Amino acid sequence: MKKEWGFKENHELHAAAAYTIRNILQAIKGNVDEAKNLKELIHLGHGDPSAYPCFQTCTIVEDALVESIRSAKFNCYPPGVGIEPARRSIAEHLSKDLPYKLTPDDVFLTAGANHGIEVILTVLARPGANILFPRPNYPIYEARASFSTLEVRHYDLLPEKGWDVDLDGVKALANSNTVAIVLINPGNPCGNVFTFDHMKKVAETARELGIMVIADEVYAHQVFGEKPFIPMGVFGHIAPVVTIGSLSKRWIIPGWRFGWIAITDPLGILQQTGIAGSLTSCLTITADPPTVIQGAVSRIIENTPDSFFMNINKLLGEASDLLYKKLKEIPHVDCPHKPEGSMFAMVKLNLSDFDDIVDDTDFCMKLAKEESVIVFPGNAAGLKNWIRVSYSTEPKLLEDAIQRMKEFCYKHAKRSQ
Amino acid sequence: MKKEWGFKENHELHAAAAYTIRNILQAIKGNVDEAKNLKELIHLGHGDPSAYPCFQTCTIVEDALVESIRSAKFNCYPPGVGIEPARRSIAEHLSKDLPYKLTPDDVFLTAGANHGIEVILTVLARPGANILFPRPNYPIYEARASFSTLEVRHYDLLPEKGWDVDLDGVKALANSNTVAIVLINPGNPCGNVFTFDHMKKVAETARELGIMVIADEVYAHQVFGEKPFIPMGVFGHIAPVVTIGSLSKRWIIPGWRFGWIAITDPLGILQQTGIAGSLTSCLTITADPPTVIQGAVSRIIENTPDSFFMNINKLLGEASDLLYKKLKEIPHVDCPHKPEGSMFAMVKLNLSDFDDIVDDTDFCMKLAKEESVIVFPGNAAGLKNWIRVSYSTEPKLLEDAIQRMKEFCYKHAKRSQ
Ligand SMILES: Cc1ncc(COP(=O)(O)O)c(C=O)c1O
Ligand SMILES: Cc1ncc(COP(=O)(O)O)c(C=O)c1O
Repeated sequence: MKKEWGFKENHELHAAAAYTIRNILQAIKGNVDEAKNLKELIHLGHGDPSAYPCFQTCTIVEDALVESIRSAKFNCYPPGVGIEPARRSIAEHLSKDLPYKLTPDDVFLTAGANHGIEVILTVLARPGANILFPRPNYPIYEARASFSTLEVRHYDLLPEKGWDVDLDGVKALANSNTVAIVLINPGNPCGNVFTFDHMKKVAETARELGIMVIADEVYAHQVFGEKPFIPMGVFGHIAPVVTIGSLSKRWIIPGWRFGWIAITDPLGILQQTGIAGSLTSCLTITADPPTVIQGAVSRIIENTPDSFFMNINKLLGEASDLLYKKLKEIPHVDCPHKPEGSMFAMVKLNLSDFDDIVDDTDFCMKLAKEESVIVFPGNAAGLKNWIRVSYSTEPKLLEDAIQRMKEFCYKHAKRSQ
Repeated sequence: MKKEWGFKENHELHAAAAYTIRNILQAIKGNVDEAKNLKELIHLGHGDPSAYPCFQTCTIVEDALVESIRSAKFNCYPPGVGIEPARRSIAEHLSKDLPYKLTPDDVFLTAGANHGIEVILTVLARPGANILFPRPNYPIYEARASFSTLEVRHYDLLPEKGWDVDLDGVKALANSNTVAIVLINPGNPCGNVFTFDHMKKVAETARELGIMVIADEVYAHQVFGEKPFIPMGVFGHIAPVVTIGSLSKRWIIPGWRFGWIAITDPLGILQQTGIAGSLTSCLTITADPPTVIQGAVSRIIENTPDSFFMNINKLLGEASDLLYKKLKEIPHVDCPHKPEGSMFAMVKLNLSDFDDIVDDTDFCMKLAKEESVIVFPGNAAGLKNWIRVSYSTEPKLLEDAIQRMKEFCYKHAKRSQ
């Protein structure tokens, strides 16, 4: 009677989703054997410490949203680019670290930084264009690019050089169809922080290649090593910079899904080439961050005390020290670069030491099953046989997790060792 | 020295954004001559009455979000499809009007209904596929489709038949590459409400054609005529139904950007054909509604008293009566169908009556300039020389606006009239 249904499964979407940290961690978590394993699950897989009391956001942040609600002024639809007061506060906040002043027109509000990434990749996509991503990378970039007409080319971050950019590699990869280079600083997954001099060289390379820099700074100011955080926008006069930012990490409210795109471009190149206008058009037809949250942003940004940020950085610094020290006690893994910022460290697996572990994914799956510890496979970030370990957790849990990882490594090491 | 920049303006995005109500209303509002015109601006252009005290949302809604914040349990990243309690509450809420029970797995949370539309069109897009949209339509559908590989085919809503679907037209338009038909009920822009019998015929036509029904029910239960609201899901056993819903209109909080996609498909066709899985994949890589808002949804849905909704429907019903009655006093316009639901009425312009008004856009631009009254041009919704008038405003303002429109019409009418 009835003909076949005219709609079909969308395999392209499955392929894109398969890149995401969300889906990969879900698979690994699914391997935890809750019936057999009585150990408490410890999650070192993601960068979301909001559930731990010591990482709880500041009361001022909560109060700001309560006030926004109670004012009843922010129940209306927002403009596509966001409300002016929020954009102004973000412009002023970012300008503190820049040699020039951003205006509200330089700031575009997004539903979190992931959405900011979606927006800028949508703006830049066109048949034939290519974009330079770091390897290893934060994988939502690959997920969104796979779903667009952007060809992805990977340049290397060099572990032996503190995860600096392989600038020669960048020059060799780029051609006249290259539109941008993405740089994440402080780094995810590497936990590195770039120096002023190195960033200047990246900007000069971008100018030489005629491309913009997309600076993912969702971990801005989350540094606890020797190096200060320097925003890429400082070099906006060399090459135009599109900065991706967010309240998620620094204010520890990833569930509020609030971020921004800021253009730091004193020469006005992004205006002249119509990129700013294209951002506006894109934001007209995509999701908005809720007005009620936008209404809280000025208070959040202006009133959160420095002591809150200093405490979070102290906690992260102590946790990264602990992780780095304890990892040294495990003979079959190696963390070549001590983390300096963000919430992550990249750890190399000496696979030949192991008896029955074939690769990083196998390591993560077995570690989850046997020890209820979750870490992220490096392969899913572009670096095979490494793992990414998050230390944004309580010290007691972190210590416990590393102990379990140690026992796991001993258990799976070759007998001869 | 430096080569040209490798990035370019994105004209496709501009073209898509040009369809949106947002951009069109902005252009019309830009024509209001604030210096010359001392009349207060009256906005009958959009469906957002949240700024008027009489349409303010219920305290329970605000309290629910405050509690969600204060619990500190919803600061974490949400799952792609949304948190279970919110999905469960929506499933139960929708099931009250259905002959079978939805489960949380049938519900997918979105950042407002616009985002739900983006998601379902992304899932269905593939080269060669086509989709049936109503004419006139809510234009975000055209905006998103223009930015995908979906070919749009328009079927007519028939003003002389109370804006019923031209079913013969639907059958003539569809072919083996048609994936879905979109139906908005209660209607935007027409303010109509479909009967049980007519909806059943739409479902039967969909089954015959092998397509799904996308039922946009953001104005669910906002009816004030003779006809009850019947959700399309009632006919899910005939053809699978994807329902788009939202808190925006019924709870009068469009700025909270919270909506959902529900699949009402007792035969499991959307599961079998992988559409449900494709929705999940799509939600993995797009924006999420904030967890902190998701955490308030159960309380909002379960605790908002019926008296709140009844009052809103009473206000909308009275406003639509007023509009309909007053429009009859203007000789050069015609509202052929009294609104029965949503917040809008479609009004036909008798253009030949006017001296110096060339079309609906010209009408809207001049009305804004001369009278500071904003209405939406029908052309932008697919129906040339009509206008869409929103009556979701305070009665005093509505009366004032219609009076100004009347004077405007007299002023521009041909002398001989
Ligand atoms: C480098 C990087 N960019 C962007 C994001 C996304 O941040 P948001 O929560 O604002 O979407 C993350 C989150 O982990 C990240 O690590
Ligand atoms: C028919 C229709 N669908 C969807 C929407 C979007 O609703 P939301 O505010 O939930 O994005 C609207 C808003 O006006 C609408 O009229």
